[in-house]
Amino acid sequence: MTRTGLSRYVPILDWGRRYDTRTFTSDLVAAAIVTIMLIPQSLAYALLAGLPPVVGLYASILPLVAYAVFGTSRALAVGPVAVVSLLTAAALSEVATPGSAEYVVAAAALALMSGAMLIALGIFRLGFIANLLSHPVISGFITASGLIIAASQLKHLLGVSAGGHTLLEVGTALVAALPQTNPWTLAIGASATAFLFWVRSGLKPALRRLGLSDYAAGLVARAGPVIAVAASILSVVVLSLDEKGVAIVGDVPAGLPPLALPVVETSLLVSLIAPALLISVIGFVESVSVAQTLAAKRRQSIVPNQELIGLGAANVASAFSGGYPVTGGFARSVVNFDAGAETPAAGAFTAIGIALASLFLTPLLHYLPIATLAATIVVAVLSLVDLGALKRAWTYSRHDFAPMLATILVTLGFGVEAGILTGVALSIALLLWRTSRPHIAIVGQVPGTEHFRNVKRHRVVTDERVLSLRIDESLNFANARATEEFVLEEVAGRPALAHVVLQCTAINEIDMSALESLELIMHRLEAQGIALHLSEVKGPVMDRLARSHFVEHLTGAVYLTQHQAMSALSPALTRAATRGESVAA
Amino acid sequence: MTRTGLSRYVPILDWGRRYDTRTFTSDLVAAAIVTIMLIPQSLAYALLAGLPPVVGLYASILPLVAYAVFGTSRALAVGPVAVVSLLTAAALSEVATPGSAEYVVAAAALALMSGAMLIALGIFRLGFIANLLSHPVISGFITASGLIIAASQLKHLLGVSAGGHTLLEVGTALVAALPQTNPWTLAIGASATAFLFWVRSGLKPALRRLGLSDYAAGLVARAGPVIAVAASILSVVVLSLDEKGVAIVGDVPAGLPPLALPVVETSLLVSLIAPALLISVIGFVESVSVAQTLAAKRRQSIVPNQELIGLGAANVASAFSGGYPVTGGFARSVVNFDAGAETPAAGAFTAIGIALASLFLTPLLHYLPIATLAATIVVAVLSLVDLGALKRAWTYSRHDFAPMLATILVTLGFGVEAGILTGVALSIALLLWRTSRPHIAIVGQVPGTEHFRNVKRHRVVTDERVLSLRIDESLNFANARATEEFVLEEVAGRPALAHVVLQCTAINEIDMSALESLELIMHRLEAQGIALHLSEVKGPVMDRLARSHFVEHLTGAVYLTQHQAMSALSPALTRAATRGESVAA
Repeated sequence: MTRTGLSRYVPILDWGRRYDTRTFTSDLVAAAIVTIMLIPQSLAYALLAGLPPVVGLYASILPLVAYAVFGTSRALAVGPVAVVSLLTAAALSEVATPGSAEYVVAAAALALMSGAMLIALGIFRLGFIANLLSHPVISGFITASGLIIAASQLKHLLGVSAGGHTLLEVGTALVAALPQTNPWTLAIGASATAFLFWVRSGLKPALRRLGLSDYAAGLVARAGPVIAVAASILSVVVLSLDEKGVAIVGDVPAGLPPLALPVVETSLLVSLIAPALLISVIGFVESVSVAQTLAAKRRQSIVPNQELIGLGAANVASAFSGGYPVTGGFARSVVNFDAGAETPAAGAFTAIGIALASLFLTPLLHYLPIATLAATIVVAVLSLVDLGALKRAWTYSRHDFAPMLATILVTLGFGVEAGILTGVALSIALLLWRTSRPHIAIVGQVPGTEHFRNVKRHRVVTDERVLSLRIDESLNFANARATEEFVLEEVAGRPALAHVVLQCTAINEIDMSALESLELIMHRLEAQGIALHLSEVKGPVMDRLARSHFVEHLTGAVYLTQHQAMSALSPALTRAATRGESVAA
Repeated sequence: MTRTGLSRYVPILDWGRRYDTRTFTSDLVAAAIVTIMLIPQSLAYALLAGLPPVVGLYASILPLVAYAVFGTSRALAVGPVAVVSLLTAAALSEVATPGSAEYVVAAAALALMSGAMLIALGIFRLGFIANLLSHPVISGFITASGLIIAASQLKHLLGVSAGGHTLLEVGTALVAALPQTNPWTLAIGASATAFLFWVRSGLKPALRRLGLSDYAAGLVARAGPVIAVAASILSVVVLSLDEKGVAIVGDVPAGLPPLALPVVETSLLVSLIAPALLISVIGFVESVSVAQTLAAKRRQSIVPNQELIGLGAANVASAFSGGYPVTGGFARSVVNFDAGAETPAAGAFTAIGIALASLFLTPLLHYLPIATLAATIVVAVLSLVDLGALKRAWTYSRHDFAPMLATILVTLGFGVEAGILTGVALSIALLLWRTSRPHIAIVGQVPGTEHFRNVKRHRVVTDERVLSLRIDESLNFANARATEEFVLEEVAGRPALAHVVLQCTAINEIDMSALESLELIMHRLEAQGIALHLSEVKGPVMDRLARSHFVEHLTGAVYLTQHQAMSALSPALTRAATRGESVAA
């Protein structure tokens, strides 16, 4: 879909114009279902981020409206998500004490910075920096985060207090605290977890057997967390478990989020720059991959750079309404999609649902056990853990396996930020290393054709007086010297050699360092009475070379095709080979 | 030349076996000439490094012997050089006060670390990391260093005291100190500089006119610095200028260098790690390029990884004999080569020459004015300054110009280490950015051939039902998403499309992130009833893909050549095109 003028930056002007009753109804239905799913989730993730549960509700109102206006995905449901909540906790615990007022303000400030960064990236079309997060790094990071999050929630399931950001810290703290386990809390936590796991696996089939349609059964199953929440609240009230040491959410202020700009010292902002950038990029990558997957199913498309602006707006909105960093969530987006959401308006309607909830439902949440929220988190994040990816990466390529493993281990051992940075650094290092070893093939003519192929992989004919090399990379400072060494070594072993032809099919660029190397190669060959020729040089590369003195000093010629080069340098062989006659190779 | 067993790591065992009287004589002659040239140079560069002049002599004895044993270049002359001396000064001034005893020990420690690093790099075949220093970065760095060094010597030419490591610092300090200029020092400095410049340009022609052969004239001209040294010593003694405030070298301890292991605290060693690595890499790059250039002239070759070991051994030897970091020098290596050096033995003979000098000539150096040494440095380094390179880079490519300019400016403004790091970081960033934008061409058949070329650059025929794309890069995490977007956008505008063929001629690798993208592309096309085909997939890439499920789920087929693909998907058009009939494009 091509957008022009303002509607390019404000997609709502585009789809809003074609909005009708039918779309309205399907959006409304989807919104209702997502709202029910989002209430416990938003409370739980706020808890995970070390914030008061209500902040989760706040982060699920205005951000959704903002995304509805500026986002391009028809199905993406934004709000608090597990991984970003974990990153938020990691970032804030450095600068404030969890639960404190400064902590809450810092969270909003973090959302504001992350929002500003996302918008800037979008305006300057810098979405491509997200590419630095390779698939193995993201997959490894999410798996490790899932494990850390699940571990961090155990304390709530046991009713003990234990901190830590790495698996080791969390683990040791837990073991130490084990004796203080509160039996009632454990009972609620364990049963909630068991129930939620059963909901995922067993409920849907059961409902099918009761005659519900696959679609309906799927949606009802999504309401599982709400059932768990209601049941556990009831049990707390009936058995007054709060007096028996079961931690509960407590008073949740009723009402809409306070609209205010988070005011903090510059020093704090500075210390939040790095985490904010990390949260922006990771949030963007997660969100975009979800949005793309869903868009593909309906042959729609999203605009990555506009998505940056949409998510940025959502985070700015979150910052101004007492929330914390948000992004597109996978599970809720899928539900939204399955439930038939057709436009971003569904998100806006969900916002209204959450707003109503925070106005009228909060009193009910007073007796909600923390353990139940912890259970919903554990069940949700364990579905993110994909250790099988390690095996797949191993079988596919060591260069994908290494960054994945490193990301997982460092994230588990030293925390999320160290993990991501290690993964990215390692991927880039490996990419540079591969680039520094260009693939160069010695080619010969395939009998009966005008094609030239790698002598190692095809039955081809060659001429001992002519060495044809196909360089399969752009030439740059990273691989220039290796190219030099390869060519000169190959030449060394060929006494009869009179011509070297570089087939440049795959060369899109030759930088100055590489040009130096080509000149050095040419002079070395010249000294040995060997001429250097080029074939199949691409237009842009030729234009560039023309600006240097290389071509005019070239000891050989430049040919349009490798076949023309060989016809000129080794006529007899080429004629025979083209006719398909077998020639002594 | 192929080496086996021990002689691979100790080249002297290789060339030593074939050593005879003729080679001995030519090596001896070259050594004599280089010795005469090296004496003033080594004193001057030690001064530049903030060390006592005699340290320069020490650094020109054992290191040369060590390189003669382990080096592979027949002509390279190692010893103190300008740029490495500057880097040494920059590194040491952070940890000790110039001229102090700790400073001297720290210099030896720096040489030891640098030597150890070079040897390690050589043993583990890590020479390729030097490739990270692109040509523009090195060229820019050397130009900037030349300017800084020249500026840093002005104080000696004026006879004032002024410090600083960046051009700005040095400049301001000089201006402030200008009034204290010592007329006698200025007289000596100015005349020495003028004389040395004339030696470079005017002396050789003059000698030719006097009937000397070009060769002889060239060599005599090289002795210019010695003449300047002798003349200025004489003038100081005759006019007793030392009492008139002209700074002189003073007592230079006669005798051979003390053999001792530099002992320093671990904390110092740790703080020297980064500078040592920088010195190692830069020294190696400079040295290797000199060695390769000279080897090429005689159709000899050098072994980069063995050069690392040779230079490493030289630095270790320097550390154990009261020296400081050394590497191969350009000017002196050229002299050595011109003078007819045939084996590394010439270096060993030079060492003997310098040893004799430090035994018997040091008393003569007492009255040598610092200004004369400064003059030799200024004249030497100004020949390194090549601002024309900026213009060449600009005309050739902005991506080469930017890192060069950045390296020069940052080096001048913030010092050598910041300069190099900025240059390298920028080169890598630009390389990643280029990699993130793969070159993809829509190709059609060249009438009358079986060749397929870019529709933008050649008159070719295409079929609206088949879209042939030639991807000109290996696919990896950096360019996967861009590829995705390109293909899907191209498809969007083609209603009649039934087949997409990816011509993989230039793809040497497909990493997991790219595989994900290919699968996403395939499913998006499938949803639109378009089949995805591959052609000219390379063996290694095919083997890799076979390990994933991509190929078995492929909606189209894999063809050996693009021509076969088109023949299968658009028979009529291909037949006509191959016959050379004009077809509606």
